[in-house]
This record gives sequence, structure tokens and C-alpha cells, in this order.
Amino acid sequence: MFDGRTLGTPISLLIPNENARSDDYREVQVKYRPSHADYTYDAKYGFRDWRGGGRTSARETAGRVAAGAIARKLLATMHGVEIVAWVAKVGRLSAETDSERVTRDDVDTNIIRCPDPDAAERMIAAVEAARKDGNSLGGVVSCVVRGCPPGWGEPVFDRMEADLAKAMLSLPATKGFEIGSGFAGTDLSGLEHNDAFYMEGDRVRTRTNRSGGVQGGITNGETVFFRVAFKPTATVMREQDTVNVWHEDDTLKGRGRHDPCVLPRAVPVVEAMVALVLADLALRHTAVLEAAGPSVPLPERNTSG
Amino acid sequence: MFDGRTLGTPISLLIPNENARSDDYREVQVKYRPSHADYTYDAKYGFRDWRGGGRTSARETAGRVAAGAIARKLLATMHGVEIVAWVAKVGRLSAETDSERVTRDDVDTNIIRCPDPDAAERMIAAVEAARKDGNSLGGVVSCVVRGCPPGWGEPVFDRMEADLAKAMLSLPATKGFEIGSGFAGTDLSGLEHNDAFYMEGDRVRTRTNRSGGVQGGITNGETVFFRVAFKPTATVMREQDTVNVWHEDDTLKGRGRHDPCVLPRAVPVVEAMVALVLADLALRHTAVLEAAGPSVPLPERNTSG
Amino acid sequence: MFDGRTLGTPISLLIPNENARSDDYREVQVKYRPSHADYTYDAKYGFRDWRGGGRTSARETAGRVAAGAIARKLLATMHGVEIVAWVAKVGRLSAETDSERVTRDDVDTNIIRCPDPDAAERMIAAVEAARKDGNSLGGVVSCVVRGCPPGWGEPVFDRMEADLAKAMLSLPATKGFEIGSGFAGTDLSGLEHNDAFYMEGDRVRTRTNRSGGVQGGITNGETVFFRVAFKPTATVMREQDTVNVWHEDDTLKGRGRHDPCVLPRAVPVVEAMVALVLADLALRHTAVLEAAGPSVPLPERNTSG
Amino acid sequence: MFDGRTLGTPISLLIPNENARSDDYREVQVKYRPSHADYTYDAKYGFRDWRGGGRTSARETAGRVAAGAIARKLLATMHGVEIVAWVAKVGRLSAETDSERVTRDDVDTNIIRCPDPDAAERMIAAVEAARKDGNSLGGVVSCVVRGCPPGWGEPVFDRMEADLAKAMLSLPATKGFEIGSGFAGTDLSGLEHNDAFYMEGDRVRTRTNRSGGVQGGITNGETVFFRVAFKPTATVMREQDTVNVWHEDDTLKGRGRHDPCVLPRAVPVVEAMVALVLADLALRHTAVLEAAGPSVPLPERNTSG
Repeated sequence: MFDGRTLGTPISLLIPNENARSDDYREVQVKYRPSHADYTYDAKYGFRDWRGGGRTSARETAGRVAAGAIARKLLATMHGVEIVAWVAKVGRLSAETDSERVTRDDVDTNIIRCPDPDAAERMIAAVEAARKDGNSLGGVVSCVVRGCPPGWGEPVFDRMEADLAKAMLSLPATKGFEIGSGFAGTDLSGLEHNDAFYMEGDRVRTRTNRSGGVQGGITNGETVFFRVAFKPTATVMREQDTVNVWHEDDTLKGRGRHDPCVLPRAVPVVEAMVALVLADLALRHTAVLEAAGPSVPLPERNTSG
Repeated sequence: MFDGRTLGTPISLLIPNENARSDDYREVQVKYRPSHADYTYDAKYGFRDWRGGGRTSARETAGRVAAGAIARKLLATMHGVEIVAWVAKVGRLSAETDSERVTRDDVDTNIIRCPDPDAAERMIAAVEAARKDGNSLGGVVSCVVRGCPPGWGEPVFDRMEADLAKAMLSLPATKGFEIGSGFAGTDLSGLEHNDAFYMEGDRVRTRTNRSGGVQGGITNGETVFFRVAFKPTATVMREQDTVNVWHEDDTLKGRGRHDPCVLPRAVPVVEAMVALVLADLALRHTAVLEAAGPSVPLPERNTSG
Repeated sequence: MFDGRTLGTPISLLIPNENARSDDYREVQVKYRPSHADYTYDAKYGFRDWRGGGRTSARETAGRVAAGAIARKLLATMHGVEIVAWVAKVGRLSAETDSERVTRDDVDTNIIRCPDPDAAERMIAAVEAARKDGNSLGGVVSCVVRGCPPGWGEPVFDRMEADLAKAMLSLPATKGFEIGSGFAGTDLSGLEHNDAFYMEGDRVRTRTNRSGGVQGGITNGETVFFRVAFKPTATVMREQDTVNVWHEDDTLKGRGRHDPCVLPRAVPVVEAMVALVLADLALRHTAVLEAAGPSVPLPERNTSG
Repeated sequence: MFDGRTLGTPISLLIPNENARSDDYREVQVKYRPSHADYTYDAKYGFRDWRGGGRTSARETAGRVAAGAIARKLLATMHGVEIVAWVAKVGRLSAETDSERVTRDDVDTNIIRCPDPDAAERMIAAVEAARKDGNSLGGVVSCVVRGCPPGWGEPVFDRMEADLAKAMLSLPATKGFEIGSGFAGTDLSGLEHNDAFYMEGDRVRTRTNRSGGVQGGITNGETVFFRVAFKPTATVMREQDTVNVWHEDDTLKGRGRHDPCVLPRAVPVVEAMVALVLADLALRHTAVLEAAGPSVPLPERNTSG
């Protein structure tokens, strides 16, 4: 960065961790937290930084959010793309949201980041109850991307939904990803599921959007939308069975600062990862466009006879 | 390949397409099939091979299956890894399967590749009914991987579930991926969801496996399992609304050879992609192991006090 | 490819080897040819395809030439870039060539691909003498690229000269790469070596071109030029000391079809690799350009005071 | 890093620049330094950080040296590999060095980092004379790598010499790379140039080492050696013709802190880049080894008949 402008060269971001309480984790040095990565890191590396979870800590997502803020600017300024994610489900409580209209302001009206005020109230109460009980909750984040032009995404291996799925499943605590009609769409028949095309002025549109804005891995100009499942926080303030590093059965009770529900914190991380994926695909598509040369004439009318 | 052995150098596979009927696709040259990639390819490239769907055809997955067969051999021979996928759901019909015991032989007992014989029978009938109706069905493929040692997968961006999710969503017609407890796991609390560790002989095990064999992106030695949603086949033999390449509203009726349900054909493709992902992660882990040097001593017992 | 146009999707090329004489190589199965890769492949893989040299054969460069032909078309059509390589040295015989003017037609006037007719004649005679003597010769290929716009190449790791150097040293039999003033430039002082800028109309030019068209890894609009050293062909038709696969001292005499000098055949391979490197950097630069947004105003005049 | 050990996860290094004198560069904001990257960065990005040369400054190599120190440790500890680079030429002055025996201690006996004491003395005097004259000198760094096992390096595109060439040409001020016999080797015939194999105990050796320790891109167990050409420092303390950012002819005289010869500082940077390249190739080879499975039996003796 120089004079308020990027230089075209890589941008490096540094976030010092000024609020560490390593002592909270001392027991974790010798006991594996259930459904955490303590055991798998020891199995892989034979060695592990137990302070705050080390590399496995969700603190690492701060870097993703910082980088995503730059990608989001590029997408907004150059391409008019808007990304909005929100908490759609906490435990068994689901929100009702009009995904075509929801805004970031709607999302930020409450601390659970759910734009449905009634659901938000019940979610907040449920999280509070879980906290008091030493328990935790999971849920679902929904995300829409508006304004992608048709043509972003690559054939076969780097389909947009493939890159989005990888980005989402690379986030801590995620267990699932679905785009457009998702798992529920498997209940439908092809005639019910297909998105009929129609012309709206000079723009090709679809009547429904079960494709989730992506067909054959490439955007069709409709809103991209997808959902991400987050498991309940693994750290709970109750005694659980586990094993220790000497490979003996043992018990462990959670300590330290832990959210009983990561969902509201997950919202900006999901948005950041989407921005990073889209910025990459936008750059790749731009290079294709430039290389494409003169446009190809349409087939003549009589070929369809 | 030479003398029945690989040479360490890349292996090239060529599958000639000896059964093409391009004429079946002539109408597709000028009309966009709903929920296909005809429009998005035109939007991206300004040009499209309409014969058989061109690059967007699921025929490309034949190459993945061929490559996956080699990866599977490496995994089976060197690491004792076994991969089994099956059709778990067709339309609204679900199978009941013991995922710890199901074998490839069980899967191959019927043409729908579903190891639950009762469900299989009903699925086959449902697909036949859809075919007669010119309609189509989607469904879910389940997959288990048995025998992965603890330690496969990389931190942060290349978690095993992230690579699996990308591999699955790169397949044609996929709309969702979930590992372990998946979306249903968001209904549980942390106390219900956590996988308690215990010792089984000298092996660290978990009592439940909601993690799906992966914790922090790295295998823990339990069975890896996940599910993939496939939408109903987009080509249906009924007239549908669409637009043509001259950007006019139009109608199109499906023609050509199309499965009314891709699920049974998806099973070997899912297995192949899993094998390719695992073989890569196994090689990466091997390099880490070798570089790790002498093992680190365990902490002394009194450090946990 | 479809209807004479590329589809935007990967292009696959297949060249069947219809002229193999594997029997010529039977002795190579058990004896390591000096200065060939027989021993190192055995050391790496424990197994080797001895027929025609297998993967180490320079036959693999045919694929590079085929792919490079496509990259060259893109560069010529979209960017007006022209690439000319020629044989500049064979054994101790050097050519004199005006690198600013030499054309591909000049290069193709003789079988040694040297645009200096006098030198070409002597080179051809030297190669013929080497052949009769069962000996071989090396040499140098020079290459110029005209018409690169300023701005191609990336900072730090993917400088254009770094990518060119890798591309050239990836060719069989290469031992060196130099760009612009190269090794000879180390004899000069900074005052002698620097390329003074001047304006030619509205174009920034340099009076000399010791930079070889690249400054800080990025093209400056001058002609890119570089030289590549090729060692003498390792296969000679005379008995040489070597060892065999049972690790005993042995002797070996070359057989089969081998050029006593690879230089003329190297010319199109060098051109092809340059085209591939430049096409990649051109695409990367295009994406940068598109992402750059509105141009930055020049500093005000009084800032230089 | 934790408790003095690496964790298997990426290591991040930060070097604050605590000694910047941006005012020395103010004139560079509006005038392009000859044979620097000021103009090409403006041409590429339309914007440039003129303070200290910004991204084009050789200061960036500090990060390479820091990272290389870790790679060197891995190579030394795990594989017994030793890397020694030295200044072999400054201006027209060349050193005489026994590359099989030279040590890092020999190199560090003088400030010019040349292990030939007589040459070192003359080089130091030449650099001092250049400094007084406001002029600068280039030269050549030689490098040897001892102890690489046979088998490191990959076929075709990622040959070891290709990766080394890219690494070297990615360094600021480099103009050439040659391995083994290099450009001088083109003077020899094949019979003179070939490295005859012989057995030394149970080890396959070569009598000469014109291959530079690499055959077909893969190490053969002999010493790897190569040379890198560095141009004279572009910044000279004398007035030179140039153009300014308003595209007018102008003049510029160097200011600020600049070495009249970068060669001694280049030595650790060359070593660092070699270590990074070798560590990568070592990891890749390790993965191959592990995947290779049981070794292939040698051909039977009578096959050579």
C-alpha cells in the first residue's frame, strides 16, 4: 500500500494476538479435547502447540476476514457484486428470510446476526440457555451473492460451486455445504426442479433459481446462494470422557473463553471466503475474455430447422 | 507403463468416444436447455460445442474413473484403504444401510447400486415410472472410506473435508456435500454431538463418529463418511419453456439418450474422486512424515498438575 | 476445437509414435549411457523404460512444439508478438547475426537453421565431420521476441527472465541461459552497462538494450533476447566406459538414430517454450490490467523540486 | 514454532525495516532510473512506491535468506547436504577455487566473499576504485551442493536445473545461469564432454562432472555446481540520461546508499534459494519413494546378450 492505493504487488497483513491466556489451556497439553483437533495434530506431527489450540484455533480466520475485505472491495467497485450472509438456523430454530432482499444492515440489527427478528430473539435465548447449561449449539449460515455477471467459474474441476464448497469446508466446525436446491432438491423431479429460461428485456433470466445462480459451474447472472452447516462448539463446560497423551482413558472439563455458538462470528468469515473465491474467478474470467478475440457469429436461423 | 509396472512418470489415458450421435443435439445448438450449461458456456466463451453437450457432458467423468482406478490401487496396496459408495436416496425413497459393514459386492447386487434390497426395488420402479413419464429423479450418494490412518489431511485450507467437498461439487449435477453429522448435526447440542475418545487396546478410538473420521481437517483413524446430493437429470422428454441463441422466448423438448436418474452411474465417479483426493493427501502426509525427523518426547507427567 | 475455433476449454493433442525401433536400445536396458539419464532414472524410480530413452527422450518435446504453436498464434493475433530463434553457435563456430532484423525466413534458408550463410556452411561441414567420426557437437541457440508491450512479467518470483530460464533449462541437453548482456555483461562497469532512457515520439525507449528487454522482471517494450547453451549429443558411436545395472564396470558403444548435433532441432522447441511462457504472462497481465481500475494521476510537477 | 521445535505448520517470518531513508529517493518519484524497474512498474501498474525502490528493492531478498536458513537446516540434518557459494568473478577479475574443497569458512575470510585470497584482494581494490569513481561492478557467483543423494529432481518440466535456473533468475540483477560445463561446454565434442561412469566401491560415480551433478534433470550423486551472472549495480553516482514520468527527456544522478558491487551480498541469497529449491525437491522425492512400493527386480543377465 502507498498513498492510500494498492501497488499491484502482494499486500501483507499482520494481526498481533494481544489477548492470549495460555494458562487456560494447560490441561489440554496432556488431554485430547473431544471433537477437537488435538489428537489428530499429535497423530500427524507428533507435536502440538496446545496454547489456545495453536494452528487449529478459529483465530486464524481473522486473517481470512482481513484479506476478504480487500477482495470484497474489488468485487464491489469493479463488478458491482454484493455479498450478504446471515444466521439461518441455530440448534433447531430456523429463520424466515427473503434471500432476494436481505441486506447487511438487516443482518447487523442483532447480536446473533439473524435478519428475522422473531427467530433472532429465540436464538439469542437458546444460546444463553446453552451457555448457562455449559452446553453449546450449532446451526446454518446462508449466503447470497448478487450481481455476478454471467460467465464466472471454470469448467470441470474449478466450477464455482466446487471452489465455494472447498472454501466453506476449510472453515473450522463446518460439516456441510449446499447450493441452490441442495439436499432438499433431491426430493423433486426434473420437471419440478428445472429452471425455465425467459427473456426479461435483453437479459436471459430463469423463472426459478434452484440452480443457485450457477449452471455447469458457471454463473448465469441469477443470485448465487448457498448454505453452510456448522456443528455445535466442541468445547463444553461439562466433564467428558477422553484419553490423554499417554494413551490412557481420562476425563476433561472445558475451560477458557469459548462461545457456546459460533454462528454469528461465522457470518463475516463466510462472506470473506466467498469474496476471495469470487475475486479469483473474476480475474480468471477477465483473462479469458481478453484472450477470446473477436466474437463468434451466431448460427444462421435456418440451422435450427 | 512398461512391463506391467508404472514408471514413476505421468500415466496418460485415452478413451475414444466411439458412440456419438451428434444429430440428437442439433436443436440444442440454437436453444438453451433449462438447468444445463448451454447458456452459461455461451455467456462465458461466446461459442459452444453443442454436440453431446461438449465439455459440459458428464462423459468427461469417464476420465476421472479411469484415473481413480489407479489411485485406488495405490491406496489399497500401500495403505489398506477401502472405499465404498452407494445410492442412499432416489427421489423421496431412502435406503437403510449399515455404513460400517456395507461392501462393494452389496452395492453391485442390483442395477440401482443400492445395498438395501427393499429400497432398491422401489427405487428401480420409481426410476422406471419417471422414464415412462418423460420425467427424471435425483438423489443422494453415500460414501465411506475405511482404513485411513490418523494424520491424513492438511491444516486450514486443504483440510480433507475441504478437498473432498471440492471434488464432489466438481461433479456434474451435484448440489450438496455433508460429512459426518452434516446438516442434521446442527439439530444437536455440543454435549450430544461430541465424539468421546476412549482407548481400544493401544488405539485411540471415538465412541461415536459424528466427526465423520476427520477432526480439524485431519483423519483420526475412524471411518470417513460423507453424502453427496445429485439433482434430478436436467434433460426431460417433455416440452419446457426456454430461450434461444437469438434471445427470444422459445420451447424445447428433450431428445437423445439420457438417464432419468444419474445416481447409479454416479457411484463409481464418487469413488474415483475420493481415491484421487486421498492419494494426494497420502503423498503429502508421507513427505511430512519423512521430513519430521526424530519424534518429540511426550510431556512429563507432572506438567499436567 | 469445434468448427475451426477453440472452445475456451482445454485443447488436447495426441502424437502417436509410429516410428519406434526399440531393438536399437536393448543394450541400454542393462548399461547406463554416459551423460544420459539412464542411471538417474533407475536411482529415482528403481525401474526404467529403456526403449528409446522412455520419458527422458527428447521426443517429448514434440508435445511442447504442438502446444507452443497455439500459444504463438494467440501472441501473434492478439498482441502482435513475433518470436525468432536461430542457431548462433555450433561447436566453436559462431554466427554473426543482426538480432533486430533476423526473420524466420532467414533462419529456414538452410538445414542448420543459422541465418549467417557463411557460418551455416561451416557448421554443416563440422556436423558432417562429427558424424563421420562417431562424435557429436553442441552449441548455442539465440532467440528474440519483438513486440512485447511494456508490463509483461511479475515481480519477485515469476519475473519473465525467471520463467524463461526455467522453460529453457527444462529442455533436454541445456546447460545454460543468459538474457541481455548475460555473462559477458559482468565485464562491464555500471556506467557502460546501463541502458539510458530517451523519448522516441511518445514511446519510452532505451539507447542500448543490455537489459534484454526486461527490467525488474517486467518487459520494457524493447526486444527480449536471450541465449541457451546445448551440450553436445550424449550418444556417440564410439566405445565408452560406463557401468551396468549390476553395478559393474562395463563399456558401451552408441547405436540407433541419433543426431550428432541437436541444435537445428532445438530451434522450434525454444520458440515453442517462449510462446508458452509469454502467453501465460500475457494472460496474467491482462487480469491485472482489468483489475487495476481507474488510472492514478501523475505526481504534480512541484513535487520534484 | 513452539518450545524450540517447528509445529509442522507454516512458519511466518517478519523483518521490520528500521532503517529507511525515503527522502533519498524523492527524485526517483518523477524520473526513471536507467536499468532499474521504475519505468516497467509504472508501465505495468500505473503506480509505484518510489521509496527505496518499493517492491523492486533487493531488500526483499532478506525474506528469502531467512526462509532459506530453515530449508538449509532441514537439508543438513535430514540429508547431510552442504551448500557453499562464493564470489568467483568481479568485473574482469576471476578467482581460482577448487570447487570440490571450498568451505563456507574459506568464503567468509574476507569481505568480498571470495575464497581465493589474491583475487579477493584485487577485487576489493577494484570495488573501492569503482566506488570512488561513482561507478559500479558486476560479477559471477559460483555455488556447489555436496551430498545430494541420486534421485532428486523431476522429469521434464521440473528438472532440478530448471528449478535452480528459475530461482537464480528470480534474484535482482541476475543475467545468466549455467550448470556444469555451461556455455563453455559448447566448445567441446561429445567424446570430450561425456562423463564416463565407473564403480567406486558400491557407488556409481562419474570420472568427470560436466553434467554438474544432474542428468536428465535428476541428481546422480556427484556435486551439483552452477554459476550465476550479476550485472553491475544500476545505481551509479554520476549523471545519466533518462526520461521522467511526464515522458520528457531528463537527467538523473544516483543518490542514497548503494553498494558499488552486489556480489558479496548475493552469496547468502544464492545459497538460500538453492536450499529452498532442494528442500522442495527432496520432499517430492520422498513422497515418490514411499509410494513406489516393493523394488523391481533387475533384468536377468541373459537379456543383455
